Amino acid sequence: MMEWTGIAAAAGYALGRAFLLQEQELQVSKQNLPPEKVEPEISRLEEEIRQAIEEIKMIRETTRQKLGDEQAAIFDAHIMLLNDPEYIGGIKEKIKSEAMNAAAAVQEVTDQFLSLFAGIDNEYIRERALDLQDVSRRLLRRLLGIQSLSLGDVQDQVVLVTHDLTPSDAAQLDRGKVTGIVTNIGGRTSHSAIMARSMEIPAVVGLQDIVAKVTPADFVIVDGNEGKVFINPPDDLIQIYREKQENFEFRKREFKRLVDEPSVTQDGVRVELAANIGNPDDARVALENGAEGIGLYRTEFLYMGRNELPSEEEQFAAYKAVAALFGMNHPVVIRTLDIGGDKELPYMDMPKEMNPFLGYRAIRLCLDRTDIFKTQLKAILRAGVYGNIKMMYPMIATLQELRAANKVLEEVKQELSAANIPFNDAMEVGIMVEIPSVAVLADQFAKEVDFFSIGTNDLVQYTMAADRMNEQVSYLYQPFNPAVLRLVQHVIDAAHAAGKWVGMCGEMAGDLTAIPILLGMGLDEFSMSAGSILPARSLIRQLNQQDMGRIAKTVLAMDSAEAIKAFVEREVPLITRL
Amino acid sequence: MMEWTGIAAAAGYALGRAFLLQEQELQVSKQNLPPEKVEPEISRLEEEIRQAIEEIKMIRETTRQKLGDEQAAIFDAHIMLLNDPEYIGGIKEKIKSEAMNAAAAVQEVTDQFLSLFAGIDNEYIRERALDLQDVSRRLLRRLLGIQSLSLGDVQDQVVLVTHDLTPSDAAQLDRGKVTGIVTNIGGRTSHSAIMARSMEIPAVVGLQDIVAKVTPADFVIVDGNEGKVFINPPDDLIQIYREKQENFEFRKREFKRLVDEPSVTQDGVRVELAANIGNPDDARVALENGAEGIGLYRTEFLYMGRNELPSEEEQFAAYKAVAALFGMNHPVVIRTLDIGGDKELPYMDMPKEMNPFLGYRAIRLCLDRTDIFKTQLKAILRAGVYGNIKMMYPMIATLQELRAANKVLEEVKQELSAANIPFNDAMEVGIMVEIPSVAVLADQFAKEVDFFSIGTNDLVQYTMAADRMNEQVSYLYQPFNPAVLRLVQHVIDAAHAAGKWVGMCGEMAGDLTAIPILLGMGLDEFSMSAGSILPARSLIRQLNQQDMGRIAKTVLAMDSAEAIKAFVEREVPLITRL
Repeated sequence: MMEWTGIAAAAGYALGRAFLLQEQELQVSKQNLPPEKVEPEISRLEEEIRQAIEEIKMIRETTRQKLGDEQAAIFDAHIMLLNDPEYIGGIKEKIKSEAMNAAAAVQEVTDQFLSLFAGIDNEYIRERALDLQDVSRRLLRRLLGIQSLSLGDVQDQVVLVTHDLTPSDAAQLDRGKVTGIVTNIGGRTSHSAIMARSMEIPAVVGLQDIVAKVTPADFVIVDGNEGKVFINPPDDLIQIYREKQENFEFRKREFKRLVDEPSVTQDGVRVELAANIGNPDDARVALENGAEGIGLYRTEFLYMGRNELPSEEEQFAAYKAVAALFGMNHPVVIRTLDIGGDKELPYMDMPKEMNPFLGYRAIRLCLDRTDIFKTQLKAILRAGVYGNIKMMYPMIATLQELRAANKVLEEVKQELSAANIPFNDAMEVGIMVEIPSVAVLADQFAKEVDFFSIGTNDLVQYTMAADRMNEQVSYLYQPFNPAVLRLVQHVIDAAHAAGKWVGMCGEMAGDLTAIPILLGMGLDEFSMSAGSILPARSLIRQLNQQDMGRIAKTVLAMDSAEAIKAFVEREVPLITRL
Repeated sequence: MMEWTGIAAAAGYALGRAFLLQEQELQVSKQNLPPEKVEPEISRLEEEIRQAIEEIKMIRETTRQKLGDEQAAIFDAHIMLLNDPEYIGGIKEKIKSEAMNAAAAVQEVTDQFLSLFAGIDNEYIRERALDLQDVSRRLLRRLLGIQSLSLGDVQDQVVLVTHDLTPSDAAQLDRGKVTGIVTNIGGRTSHSAIMARSMEIPAVVGLQDIVAKVTPADFVIVDGNEGKVFINPPDDLIQIYREKQENFEFRKREFKRLVDEPSVTQDGVRVELAANIGNPDDARVALENGAEGIGLYRTEFLYMGRNELPSEEEQFAAYKAVAALFGMNHPVVIRTLDIGGDKELPYMDMPKEMNPFLGYRAIRLCLDRTDIFKTQLKAILRAGVYGNIKMMYPMIATLQELRAANKVLEEVKQELSAANIPFNDAMEVGIMVEIPSVAVLADQFAKEVDFFSIGTNDLVQYTMAADRMNEQVSYLYQPFNPAVLRLVQHVIDAAHAAGKWVGMCGEMAGDLTAIPILLGMGLDEFSMSAGSILPARSLIRQLNQQDMGRIAKTVLAMDSAEAIKAFVEREVPLITRL
C-alpha cells in the first residue's frame, strides 16, 4: 500500500479503480511555409478558432446545466481569450512575418504569454494562466487533428487521477461514474477543488507526482475529509472506508432533509443558524446548506487582490447582492473592514509591526482612515434598503471607540440624507466581542449596541495570550478553557439583561461539542462555515435546552478545557456520531 | 539659547556656568632606542606601572568612601589591567624587540587591543575598552611627565561638560561644586550615568558633540528628569528651573526622611512597598530608596549578554546575594525565567515568531526546556536558605501549566534532598497574573498558589489587545480602563477569599494616580522601580484606606480610563503635588 497526504479539497470518501487522465503530448513541429501558403494558413487558423468557440459554447451550456452559472462563467473567459486581439493577433502576426505554420505560432505566442505570467505571484494570474493553457491545447488539438481524450468513455465507477482538472475536463465529468478525484496540483481554492466541491465529488489535490506513481489497475481510496489517498490498500482498510463512506452518504442525505427545517430544540427553543461568508458567491452555498442568515459577512475580499480601494458603487453592489439573495426574513450581518494584522493591502502603506495581532487593524485603522470607513458605511447603509442588513464593527476595545465609530456613522447618514440618497436609517449596529476588555465590560457595552457577535477566534487568542497560528503555543488556544466560557456567559447574560441578542461567529459556534454548552448558555445566533450548518441543526433539533442549561452550569465550575470537552461528550454522546 | 535633548541619566535639575573638562591631547612620538637604553626603559615602565597602581589604589579608597564598594570595584579592573601579562607583556616585548620607547609601545599595544574590541558589539566589551583607555592614559601621562587635569581645581558651583566621565574623573568629583553633568557619549547604563546617579548629581548623557559647542562662559541648565540641556537660556526659563530645582530638592529631602518609615495609611492599614530589580546591584539602590522587599526580581539579566546558559552556582550566588542583603524580614520574590517574546537569547535557537508577545516564552519555554528550568529552580531553592525568598512563575495561562511547573519543582526538591543539599522546602510559590484567563479564573488559581503578583504591563496589553510598544495603538494601552480595574479587583477578592496575599509588579503599582485605587481595592504589596517608592510611601501615609475603598468602588462603575484618572486626581489632589 502507498499512503499519500495532500489537500482535502472536497469532503467525502471514494473507492474504486484508478482512471488515469494524462495530458496527451502535443508534438508541434515548426515549418517554414512557402509565401503562397501563408494566407490560407491564417484562414485555417480563423476557422479552427470559430469551431473551438462553438465547442466551448456547448461545454458552457452543459456546465451551466450541471453546475450552474458560476462554473459555466469560466468558459466565457476561454471564449474571450479566443477573441483577444493581443493573443490571436500575435499568432497571426507570427504566421505572416515568419511564414510559420499556425500550430507552431500558437505554441510560441502561448509560451510567451505564460512566461510573462510565470513571474507574477498572484492567485488571479495563476488562474488566467490555467485558462490560457486549457484554451491553447484545445486550439492546438484542432490544428493538429488530434482527438481529445474523453472522460465520456469511462464505463465503471472510477477514481480520476490527473495532473490537474481543467474546466473542460470537468464539464465532461459524469458524477455517476467518477466517484473521486485525485490531482497532482491545486489548492483548496483552485478551480479543480471548487468544481469538485460543486459536484460533491470527494477530492484530494496537490499530491505532486501521484499521476506518475499510479497505474490503471490500481485500487484507490480517496479520503476527501482528511486529504488522504491510499493506493492498493489492504482489505480491512477498504472495509473501514466503505463504512465511513456509507455513514457519510447517510448523514449527507439526512442533513439534506434539514435544509428547510427550523433550528429548534426538543423543548421548543428556536435559535438561528447562520453562515460566515467571504464574498457573494459564498452566499448561495450558504443558502443551499440551510443558512437562516449570514452572521458574518467578511468584507475584506473586496479590498484584497487588487491595486486600489474598492469604490462605493462596487461595495454597494456586493452587499446588495447578498442582501437581495437572503431577502427580508433572513438577516445579513456585514462586518466593517477588518484589515491589518495578518491581512495586508499592498496599495495601503501599512506599517510593519512587531505583533500585528496586537496592532493597527480593523476599527483602529478605520477610525484613523475615516475616508475609507465612510465609503464603506455609505455602501452598507444604501444596500440596507434591499434586504435585512445589520452591521458590526470589528476589534472594538473601548466604549470610546464604539462612540467614535457611531459618530462617523451619523455623519455618513447626514451626508446621504443631504444628497437624497435612499438608505436604511434604522439599521441595527452591533460590535464583535473579540477583545477581553469588551467581554469584561459587556454590561456597559450592551446599553450602547443593538447586538453582540462573539468572535471566539480572537477572543480565545487574547484571553489565553496565545497566537493560534503559532504551533509552539497552539496547545494554549483553548476555546473550552473555563475563562473563555465564563466570558462568553457574561456577554450573553449582559446582553439579555439589556434586551439585546447575541451571536457567535468564531469557529467555536460550529463546533459540535461547543454547541450544547452555548445553547445552554442562551446564545441566540450561531454563525459558522456553510458546511457545518446542517450537522449543527441536526444536533440542536435533538437537544433539550433546559438540559443544556444544566450542562453549561456544570462546565463553568470545571477547571480544564479537556475535562469540559470530555464531560460534554459523555453527557451528549450524540455529538460523536454526527 | 541652544536646546539639546539627550538621555536622562540622573534625576534632578542643575544650573550653573559650564566647566569644560577636555581630554588633553597626549603627544606620543616614537623613538628608536640605542641597545643599552632598552633595559633601563623597561625598568622605567615597571616603575611607572607600580606608581600608577599606587595612585589607583588611593583613588579606589576615595571612591569607596564617597560612593561605596561597588563603584570602587571599577578600579580593581584598572589594577588588573596593569598586572595583565598579555597587555603589559606585549608592551615590554615591543620595547625589547623593536627598541621602541615605552610611551610609543604603550600607545601601539593599547591601539591593538582597542581595535580588537571595536569589532565586538557588546556592552561588557565596550566598558572594558573604556577601562583600558582610562588606564593607558594614566600610564602615558606618567611616562610623558604630564600632570593630569584636576577637577579638584573647580572653585564655584559648575556644570561639568565633558566627552565622557571616566571612573578616574568621577573619583575626583566634589558634589558640592559639580552640580550637574553633561556628556557627549554614554547611555542610561553607562559608567558615567551610573556614577551620576550614585552621587545624585543631575546628568544628561549621549549629547554627541556638545563639548565642541559649549564655552566656559556659557550658562547651562541640566534637566536630568527630561534629558534636556539648555545653553544660555533666557531669565524666565532660569526662573522656572530654579523653582523646579527647589521643589525637587525639597521633595528629595522630604522623601529621604521616609526611608525607614512604615508604609501605613492614616487609618492604620499597612502595605508593603517593594522594588522591581534586574540584578543584584539594583538591590542596594532599592534598599537605599526604602524598599521593604523585592516584589519582582527579574532573572533574565543572568541569561543575557553572554554566550551560554548560566550555571546553577552562578545563579545561586546572584540570588543569595540579594536574599542576604534583604535579610529574613524583607521578602525577595524571584520570578523564574521570562525569556522569549521581545527578549531573545543568542545562544538558544529561538523560533522567529509572527507575534512574539503571544508566543513561546517564559513558563511555556521552561516547561518545554525543563533542563534550563530545573537548574534555575535548584539555585532558587538553595538560595532560599539565606533569606526570605519566594518564587513565582511568569506567563501562566492555565491551571495545568501551574500544576506542571509545580511537578517539576517537586522533582527538583527530591533531587536536592537525595543529594543532601540544603534548600528551603517551605518556600512560598506564586504566579504572575498577566494573562486575562488567569485573572478571570483567579478564584480557581487562588486555591493552588501561595500568592499572586499582578503583572499589569502584560495584563493590560492582552486585555486591550494592544501592543504597548506599538505607537499606533499605544492609546489603547490603558491601565485605568475599567475592564483592567475589574480584573484587578476580582484577583484581589479571589485571593483574599482564599487567605492569600496579592502584589502588583507592573508599572501601574508605582503610578501615583493608581495607588489610591489599588489601596482601596485591598492590594497588599506594591512593587515598583526604586525611585518611585518614597513618593508612593509619602502618598500612602497621607491617605485613608476606607476613603480609598469608596473611590475604588466609584471608579469601577465608570466607563472610561480618562474619566477614572480625572476623578481620582480630583478626589486626591495631593497626587499632582508629589
